[in-house]
Amino acid sequence: MNKHALFHQPDSRYAYALGEKKFRIILRTAHEKLGKIELLYNNKYDFTKWRETAEMTKFSTDGLFDYYKVDFDLSDVRLAYIFRIESGKKVYYYSEKGAYEDYDFTLAYYTFFQFPYINGADVMPVVEWSKGAVFYQIFIDRFARGNFDKDDGYINSPWQEKCNRYTFAGGDIQGIISKLEYIKDLGANALYLTPIFLSQTNHKYNIVDYTAIDPQFGDKKDVDDLLKKAHFLGMKVIIDAVFNHCDQNHACFQDVIKNGKNSQYYNSFIIDGNYPDPEKGNYAHFADCAYMPKWNTSDARTRQFLIDIALEYLEWGFDGLRLDVADELSHHFLRQLRYKVKEKFPEALLLGEVWHDNRHWLRGEQIDGVMNYKLHKILADYFGCYPISSKQASERMNGLLIMNTDQANAMALNFLDNHDTPRFLRFTGGNKDKLLCALCALVMYPGMPCVFYGTELPLDGGGDPDCRQTFDWTFSEQDEVYIKNFKTILGLKKYDALKGDKTDITSDGGVLKISRQNDKCTITAYFNMCKRAKPVEFEGEVLLSINLKNSKLLSSGVLVVKSEN
Amino acid sequence: MNKHALFHQPDSRYAYALGEKKFRIILRTAHEKLGKIELLYNNKYDFTKWRETAEMTKFSTDGLFDYYKVDFDLSDVRLAYIFRIESGKKVYYYSEKGAYEDYDFTLAYYTFFQFPYINGADVMPVVEWSKGAVFYQIFIDRFARGNFDKDDGYINSPWQEKCNRYTFAGGDIQGIISKLEYIKDLGANALYLTPIFLSQTNHKYNIVDYTAIDPQFGDKKDVDDLLKKAHFLGMKVIIDAVFNHCDQNHACFQDVIKNGKNSQYYNSFIIDGNYPDPEKGNYAHFADCAYMPKWNTSDARTRQFLIDIALEYLEWGFDGLRLDVADELSHHFLRQLRYKVKEKFPEALLLGEVWHDNRHWLRGEQIDGVMNYKLHKILADYFGCYPISSKQASERMNGLLIMNTDQANAMALNFLDNHDTPRFLRFTGGNKDKLLCALCALVMYPGMPCVFYGTELPLDGGGDPDCRQTFDWTFSEQDEVYIKNFKTILGLKKYDALKGDKTDITSDGGVLKISRQNDKCTITAYFNMCKRAKPVEFEGEVLLSINLKNSKLLSSGVLVVKSEN
Repeated sequence: MNKHALFHQPDSRYAYALGEKKFRIILRTAHEKLGKIELLYNNKYDFTKWRETAEMTKFSTDGLFDYYKVDFDLSDVRLAYIFRIESGKKVYYYSEKGAYEDYDFTLAYYTFFQFPYINGADVMPVVEWSKGAVFYQIFIDRFARGNFDKDDGYINSPWQEKCNRYTFAGGDIQGIISKLEYIKDLGANALYLTPIFLSQTNHKYNIVDYTAIDPQFGDKKDVDDLLKKAHFLGMKVIIDAVFNHCDQNHACFQDVIKNGKNSQYYNSFIIDGNYPDPEKGNYAHFADCAYMPKWNTSDARTRQFLIDIALEYLEWGFDGLRLDVADELSHHFLRQLRYKVKEKFPEALLLGEVWHDNRHWLRGEQIDGVMNYKLHKILADYFGCYPISSKQASERMNGLLIMNTDQANAMALNFLDNHDTPRFLRFTGGNKDKLLCALCALVMYPGMPCVFYGTELPLDGGGDPDCRQTFDWTFSEQDEVYIKNFKTILGLKKYDALKGDKTDITSDGGVLKISRQNDKCTITAYFNMCKRAKPVEFEGEVLLSINLKNSKLLSSGVLVVKSEN
Repeated sequence: MNKHALFHQPDSRYAYALGEKKFRIILRTAHEKLGKIELLYNNKYDFTKWRETAEMTKFSTDGLFDYYKVDFDLSDVRLAYIFRIESGKKVYYYSEKGAYEDYDFTLAYYTFFQFPYINGADVMPVVEWSKGAVFYQIFIDRFARGNFDKDDGYINSPWQEKCNRYTFAGGDIQGIISKLEYIKDLGANALYLTPIFLSQTNHKYNIVDYTAIDPQFGDKKDVDDLLKKAHFLGMKVIIDAVFNHCDQNHACFQDVIKNGKNSQYYNSFIIDGNYPDPEKGNYAHFADCAYMPKWNTSDARTRQFLIDIALEYLEWGFDGLRLDVADELSHHFLRQLRYKVKEKFPEALLLGEVWHDNRHWLRGEQIDGVMNYKLHKILADYFGCYPISSKQASERMNGLLIMNTDQANAMALNFLDNHDTPRFLRFTGGNKDKLLCALCALVMYPGMPCVFYGTELPLDGGGDPDCRQTFDWTFSEQDEVYIKNFKTILGLKKYDALKGDKTDITSDGGVLKISRQNDKCTITAYFNMCKRAKPVEFEGEVLLSINLKNSKLLSSGVLVVKSEN
């Protein structure tokens, strides 16, 4: 047995509560042939005397490791356990001490793994409405204009023309309101809106006033109307909360520019010297943008100031927040924010922009889920420009799921592209069928799919700002087959099998298989991005097929099948 | 290169801030011959363009793995990095993607490791006074009696007689006050007191009233006097805070017994049914003790109630809390407790009783340190009844240090024994020299050594309650050499070299070596518990030698040497 590969960590994503009496244990091994793997467990006060036994089953494989798990219900939530692993003719006992061929149960109190107590307050819940959520992300200036009475002197780019970093096209909140039925008809039931607050830019990620709606986009009544109509249609709305930084014209920063260390807001920023100087950029700011000074979320009063804003957004009726640059906020701030938000709004969704390893953010005491850049990259590679095999795609998808708990995975915001990436069509080299295949993988994967506005056309575009072009409402080149498949794919999320956590991702003969299951049925998607892949045999009802040469045999594209259990 | 063994995790004990501009990165590999290992790093916004290079050095080895680290100062605290590992003729680049022989820096933004921002609020500080702390743990009923005017009808065991679970010997707070100079003279500068609050038992871990001093031990004035005198003598005092459970006679629980679901305290406990019934034990309680109902630390009001008690203790003047059964308290409670405590008392020490894997508790947002049962077991094995080799001892000591950050290790409460274990003399089979060797290892190891009262005699005794015998103040069998060595060992903690984090633990030729270092000097302890070990050669001033046949050569026992750097 490969002892370097063997891994388990108590009170982590390898051992966590699914509910107040329900528990999951995961064990990692190398890819190797092992015999029976059992969990020996009991309440920690009786463990030395006797143990229950539960067999573990292999449920996932990534590039280097196999993963075994067991879920079980507990009557006594003070858990002690060790693993019993058969390897050839040997038996290993794996405890906190390591893996050895013998184990002295009389001394177990020193060495067993434990989960001392499942306290309800530490069990991470899944926001109920997130389970069937299909998001539609709107970059407001470019989606739709609804208000033609507003002062539109700021618009410097006709709707049909190509936008750049400095152009304003005129999209607004009334425009979104006018398109809600359209969005719902596509199959989305939730909106993610980029910022709407006072700001000189078209993207508005540099906010001057956190509670004043930017007049380019509308006013508070427009926001009320949007939320009212969206909620009437059964749709949720989350808003970008930009708490990492503000605009240099924010009143607090201006006060520090004026009064330096004597300003009551001096500690709200991180300044090297007595006065901040935007010319020198002698203060913490976002990226290399001195015009976006960073809030000091290590400062208690600043944390409270931002938390009050968050609470105000939720009081207005927003259903959640997408925290911009969440990874540069202090963990301490995120913990306090979550506590205050969930106390008043337990069903408010807290998402964060974390591009990289996100384990520290997703333990249940900070945010609910992240913008899933890791999945985006896998899909961009597999369906796009850096071709990887189905085996590699399956391994990386499994490797990603094993990074976090089911709860955090369920609340990941999964996207093909967004306002910070090139349009996915660029990754597929303009191939719309590949784009649909990727969309299908997105919907099949655990989490909340999020479609960037215009993907249904599909809109094309490179990286920021080219990915933020205006929506073409003339539908001049609408492809009926494309839009039909598009809707079918989003519609898959209505099946309860896609709302639960039973997921199986494998590859066989060049075909990537993503299967989701509940008690009643299994929905399986077969993906073939490799012409040499072997044909797929399946049983059940075909829900979707793209680019198939034979309904029984997948040669290239995607096939989604529903079968009863 | 063994890819199964290779490990790094950002924003974890493998990558953490030592200060607001100071950072540590650790990489784990198998025991294998590798060439140069380098960290390539820069601020995350410029990483794709250019990188700094820092060479990593091997600093620790445990049973399966080697560990490399690099500490460095940052001007820009938004860190991106990958590793470059030479292995034979190959070079591997290790990033979030895995270890590969090539790496595309133009796409690095997807795959580098990152520590997005060092926010001051997330940097775990070390409580300043903990750095030189030597604790003396007192089980109050058995240590010393000072008040001979009190109603002593409860005393049912003459001081010189053997105690059992149900006997009261009469020790009290005035007794402790009268012995403070004695304790200071031994070399301790901090006290850890078991509970002092109203309770029917001699141990008082089942509290009836959290702010009433038990009359057996004294009154509030005695507590004030103790704290005043201890602080005058430069000693700190921490107190057991028993927040996991109370006594069934606690007013809140009695209210629930009387009023069931109508009691305002019903949710302060975890009850199966309308009423708790101590006969049936139909509620969560400590271990199998129905008389100790568990507080529900998932309930917000109960958390506040307990936090207010903690604050009151600190307002009285206690310097910290030792949280009993900390591992069964909700993490949520511990986070709130820490936040409220540190806000008012940043130098208050928060220790917790966590016997097993403690990583989840020691990330800087819950407790400062744990009762170090893992170290206790290593010392009990190496110096005691389950002999392990010096190599195994060194590997296990290193393996323990690598589990947590330097800050958490510095605030571990390290003990040979306590009120819940047999006296260490039992582990050494009555051998006092071995006990001193173990004590020396305890003091040399990073963290805060804690001596259980009477170890200086030494007191003997098996597990609870036998380890809680009365202190023999007649010193009838005082061994002058033993007590001299005892004091020398505690005195080692005065050297600054033992207060820092530069630690080297190795084994060579059967000799275990623990070395601590600062800029000026190195203090090294050589332990030989194996008669066949090879002699040690050393240079420097001998601070301690026990059971040595030759002052230049260690044959059996311990030798502590100080050398200038």
